[in-house]
Amino acid sequence: MDEAAFIAALRGIATHPAARGLADDCAVLPLGGETLVLTHDMLVEGTHLAPGQSLADAAWKLVATNLSDLAAKGAQPIGVLVGHMLGDGDGEFLAGLAAVLAHYAVPLLGGDTVRGPAGAARAFGLTAIGRATHVPVPARSGARPGDALWLTGPVGAAMLGLEALRTGNGDATAYLRPVALLNAGRALAPHVTAMMDVSDGLLLDAARMARASAVTIAITAAQVPIATPEPRRHEALRWGDDYQLLFTLPPGQEPPVPAHRIGAALPQAETPLLLDTIPLTETTGLGYQH
Amino acid sequence: MDEAAFIAALRGIATHPAARGLADDCAVLPLGGETLVLTHDMLVEGTHLAPGQSLADAAWKLVATNLSDLAAKGAQPIGVLVGHMLGDGDGEFLAGLAAVLAHYAVPLLGGDTVRGPAGAARAFGLTAIGRATHVPVPARSGARPGDALWLTGPVGAAMLGLEALRTGNGDATAYLRPVALLNAGRALAPHVTAMMDVSDGLLLDAARMARASAVTIAITAAQVPIATPEPRRHEALRWGDDYQLLFTLPPGQEPPVPAHRIGAALPQAETPLLLDTIPLTETTGLGYQH
Repeated sequence: MDEAAFIAALRGIATHPAARGLADDCAVLPLGGETLVLTHDMLVEGTHLAPGQSLADAAWKLVATNLSDLAAKGAQPIGVLVGHMLGDGDGEFLAGLAAVLAHYAVPLLGGDTVRGPAGAARAFGLTAIGRATHVPVPARSGARPGDALWLTGPVGAAMLGLEALRTGNGDATAYLRPVALLNAGRALAPHVTAMMDVSDGLLLDAARMARASAVTIAITAAQVPIATPEPRRHEALRWGDDYQLLFTLPPGQEPPVPAHRIGAALPQAETPLLLDTIPLTETTGLGYQH
Repeated sequence: MDEAAFIAALRGIATHPAARGLADDCAVLPLGGETLVLTHDMLVEGTHLAPGQSLADAAWKLVATNLSDLAAKGAQPIGVLVGHMLGDGDGEFLAGLAAVLAHYAVPLLGGDTVRGPAGAARAFGLTAIGRATHVPVPARSGARPGDALWLTGPVGAAMLGLEALRTGNGDATAYLRPVALLNAGRALAPHVTAMMDVSDGLLLDAARMARASAVTIAITAAQVPIATPEPRRHEALRWGDDYQLLFTLPPGQEPPVPAHRIGAALPQAETPLLLDTIPLTETTGLGYQH
């Protein structure tokens, strides 16, 4: 069973509206006058950790990326649960975990600590729990034809960071310790028609927003802020790990936080995405280039 | 860093009261007129899965054991998040997951699906989210000297089930598909002074309750209901995986559900546990015999 088939089957089980068809960054569940926002991510050695990445950075990234999912919902984090498989570098993991939780002032509520068999690739899990600060909670699916498409900041910084990590030259921080834009997400939540964080690459994630919203999204490449030199613009548009917020606003509306207008939503056409008027699909150039 | 040192360090980070010092089955967090009850467990191939255990049974057990943690809080489950590492038997995992969620009428809200490196021992994570049905939420720490100690049902059935699985003779269901006593937990929550589920063995878990409550617990071996033949009584008291509820009530109070009185809480003595008046500690015979 491949990943797509597995997720399709999982979607058949996750029929509760709070699951949002497993097509959003988070589950969203009303509870006692509040709205819970829940997300869980796993990180596996050999798959998600770059060579040379310390477990302190891994713990940081695990927490920050889950908090970024909450940010895309305008949610305030209320705590995390950590699943940890013991092994080398546990002290580093703890130091990174303590640092990132202190940085975001998020409490560690619980979790599980397990042993794997000798030599096992280690897996770490993190569940982040938040409360919505604005209802309805933004989804990927709300963009309407005519809306403008906005991005909070540059893409490509994590790509340069990973190259720095691999070569030992330059600053790898943008890749190792991403920033969860919690304040921006909260400020944006009451205004946006759709919102998500850009984790897998701007073009791929914009195409997901387009499909979820049943629109086509048109992006003007030159308007996208990039952290790279100009010749690498098209790579920067396809790399992930920057965790900027991508959102749509009704035409003419200005965002309440600094952001860049990079395109618009159009009536749904054959492809989910137009880049400088060129149609792109998942099989023709959206992809994550890792 | 060994497991005890890791958890001690983690406890130093988990200072929020909702974390209950990482000494309880769940985190307990007030939210908007409700009280959230949260738990996360991981299950790792090669550590937690018996040879011959299908992934359908693994998925069942992963969900049921987390729901058992909620049961011990008298909580009503409101959903789960699943972390899944892809590999052989994914179809079985999905079937078991669908079956256990339907059995308990608990929605799948979300999660994460990842690939491990080739040949990796797979890890699965589950977060269960519940709402308390009674506040204050029962803890392990509330037993008082003079309280009676009760157990909802027999221990030892999972031990026999694991033996059946290993030998191919007999019924392994009690080991493979434990029952989360959600209704009993809800009925008990308003009455108990302390409650927990018995996951690691009656004696070991009773000693944990005693330490958390700063009492000594005295158990009369002959009063403990067992699922095994009589000669194996002392094994049954030490094996885990039965997920009965262990709780204390003020003296003279009858429980609202069928249960067996197996002992009492006494003023704290040198050891946490007396078995037929013989003092036991973690190093002298409480242990989990797997």
